[in-house]
Amino acid sequence: MFDLFPIHGGVCAPEGFSADGIAAGLKKEGKLDVAFVHSLFPAKVSALFTTNRFAAAPIRYFQGLGEVFDCNFVLINAKNANAMTGAEGIEDIEWLMERLKHRFPSLVNPVMSSTGVIGVRLPKEKIEASLGEIVLGKKEGARAAQAIMTTDAFSKEVAFKVELSDGRSFCIGAMAKGAGMIDPAMATMLCFITTDADVPENRMKELLQKAAHTTFNAISVDGDTSTNDTVMLFSNKASGVYEEGAFLMALERVMHKLATDVARDGEGAKKLVAFEVSGAASEEEAIKAAKALTTSLLVKTAIFGEDPNWGRIASTIGSSGVECDENCLRISFGEVLVYDRGAILFDKTIEEKAASVMRQESFKIHCDLGIGRGKFTAYGCDLGYEYVKINADYRT
Amino acid sequence: MFDLFPIHGGVCAPEGFSADGIAAGLKKEGKLDVAFVHSLFPAKVSALFTTNRFAAAPIRYFQGLGEVFDCNFVLINAKNANAMTGAEGIEDIEWLMERLKHRFPSLVNPVMSSTGVIGVRLPKEKIEASLGEIVLGKKEGARAAQAIMTTDAFSKEVAFKVELSDGRSFCIGAMAKGAGMIDPAMATMLCFITTDADVPENRMKELLQKAAHTTFNAISVDGDTSTNDTVMLFSNKASGVYEEGAFLMALERVMHKLATDVARDGEGAKKLVAFEVSGAASEEEAIKAAKALTTSLLVKTAIFGEDPNWGRIASTIGSSGVECDENCLRISFGEVLVYDRGAILFDKTIEEKAASVMRQESFKIHCDLGIGRGKFTAYGCDLGYEYVKINADYRT
Repeated sequence: MFDLFPIHGGVCAPEGFSADGIAAGLKKEGKLDVAFVHSLFPAKVSALFTTNRFAAAPIRYFQGLGEVFDCNFVLINAKNANAMTGAEGIEDIEWLMERLKHRFPSLVNPVMSSTGVIGVRLPKEKIEASLGEIVLGKKEGARAAQAIMTTDAFSKEVAFKVELSDGRSFCIGAMAKGAGMIDPAMATMLCFITTDADVPENRMKELLQKAAHTTFNAISVDGDTSTNDTVMLFSNKASGVYEEGAFLMALERVMHKLATDVARDGEGAKKLVAFEVSGAASEEEAIKAAKALTTSLLVKTAIFGEDPNWGRIASTIGSSGVECDENCLRISFGEVLVYDRGAILFDKTIEEKAASVMRQESFKIHCDLGIGRGKFTAYGCDLGYEYVKINADYRT
Repeated sequence: MFDLFPIHGGVCAPEGFSADGIAAGLKKEGKLDVAFVHSLFPAKVSALFTTNRFAAAPIRYFQGLGEVFDCNFVLINAKNANAMTGAEGIEDIEWLMERLKHRFPSLVNPVMSSTGVIGVRLPKEKIEASLGEIVLGKKEGARAAQAIMTTDAFSKEVAFKVELSDGRSFCIGAMAKGAGMIDPAMATMLCFITTDADVPENRMKELLQKAAHTTFNAISVDGDTSTNDTVMLFSNKASGVYEEGAFLMALERVMHKLATDVARDGEGAKKLVAFEVSGAASEEEAIKAAKALTTSLLVKTAIFGEDPNWGRIASTIGSSGVECDENCLRISFGEVLVYDRGAILFDKTIEEKAASVMRQESFKIHCDLGIGRGKFTAYGCDLGYEYVKINADYRT
């Protein structure tokens, strides 16, 4: 048994971690655009990355160092993805990391993470010129979370203190960025997690994968899979405390909060929708149907229009490739049942009730396929004019 | 050898076929909303249908009659899809077809096709009340093409006369509707093709499938797969002429014209884009990459913004699951090469040239994966504010 309490501080909440955001001139008007996370104590790092074949240079650089390795520092920049930049992309990182280590000799295997435009060389001199502003030990998690934002409408951080039944405790904190290029097929956007729990090195990656399954791998904004998606976990064992059930639960809570924040912050989005699929032939089929709902443009635009167009929900399930039968299917908006195994319940009264569910900022759409026991919940958002505006003019 | 000439008349161009559009009050303001196609001579029909598990009632009704069967009449209505309507959906069609046969005793196995809102019973009485306006033999193909439109910005018809080298000839004509719910995974939207060629009954379906592969199965507007997608071929053998190579070529030309018209008319779209993928490990891989490009929201919004954002093209290829390598990939907008096997060619001059390609109404984006010999061209369109507007407010 254990208790879990929300606390302040984001990535700086666990013992020994510091973070800050600085302005390197990558964004306009002196906005924060470079961040770091640092552990005073020796730490291990493990990460999940994009499945995109054109993984960005910082990901290839990280992977060159191993699966889990000693690392007490990550430098993060916005505005430039350092993707499709070939061998030069890696060289730019090596150049920067050498300068970092020269300036801060205590750094062990510092790594990098980038987000922004694809196919442009990293402005390494600008970033290098700003390294003087880094003060290890500064506990400015909120500024770090701000610095890594791109098209995000709000910054995203979270932290929990976990108390075990014997009174011992550990902390976990995290920050994330992401609003576009979010796809359910993989770990997604940038997310940095810190903990002072005594996590066994050989469990880090598997625990990340477990927690990603129902969190970052369950959200979608636009079905596009980035070259840079990263979820990185730093563990410095400073608390000396660990209980796997409690840690996994806390990790899932942290990642669920940030993943749904990302879906809620889908570019231009106003609504967070949980697509609950149950009664599928298997969990795999439930995942397929739920993710099809999160990526359907017709469903997303109907959500934007607050239109309980259940026919589009049904059509998307029907075309998702899963086993289904219209005489077994039930569809609800919130608690309002609109289609019941062949019977169209939809009338003016039901329509108005379902529409009022959709006028909320956050609600669920539940589809019971009525076939088996597979279930999964995926998270999506609406797609409106703002999405088009943001993405038609992104580079300019 | 053979020659192929565009002719007027649409579905009425081949000998013995008639068609017209009438107003049954399904659309507002007395617009045409019901159409028919009729063959004076005995005819065979075959069709490709949606792969959506929740195939609409008219599709299930058709499939109950066989794969290829005697049929000289199809009734088509807009505004109501007769989908997710269960056994009652079929009963409504049977009721209408009985009344049709009673009124026109010469009809053989009349079938129906529907498009519009999902999950609402067919307004069969309204349609029945309009049957008196049907005049078999009327050659009003353009009015029929207008009647089947829903969110289409323009009506779509085409016809060719095919002259064989020995002087004999046959005709083929067609009409289509479709601007949304268009997906590359299947035969798509409604398309009705008529021919007086002497097509062997047992070849009809296979020829349709062959022609669909590079035409209707190569387009995408929004990645959503309708419950009603249909491509129907009527053949009445009136010319007594047939040469398979010539017929297949003509069928492909007809379907290519209408498929690209549908992509061009993507809801709110202004541009038709051919995504040519070559150098893939196989044709299957080329199809996967090309279709991923047509459905990527980030690519579609960049096209809307006339922004030659080649990084999004690369990222989409990288996440499509195909074998690829950034040191082998080449990307061009029209004839403007912007990325060449690891080298970023993009500068202000190249960017302006690529942007000017994108300012055209129709252009190609070519991706040479540089791995093998697989190639495929898929057709897509931009996604702009109008798409959101049309789909957020569709039912109201």
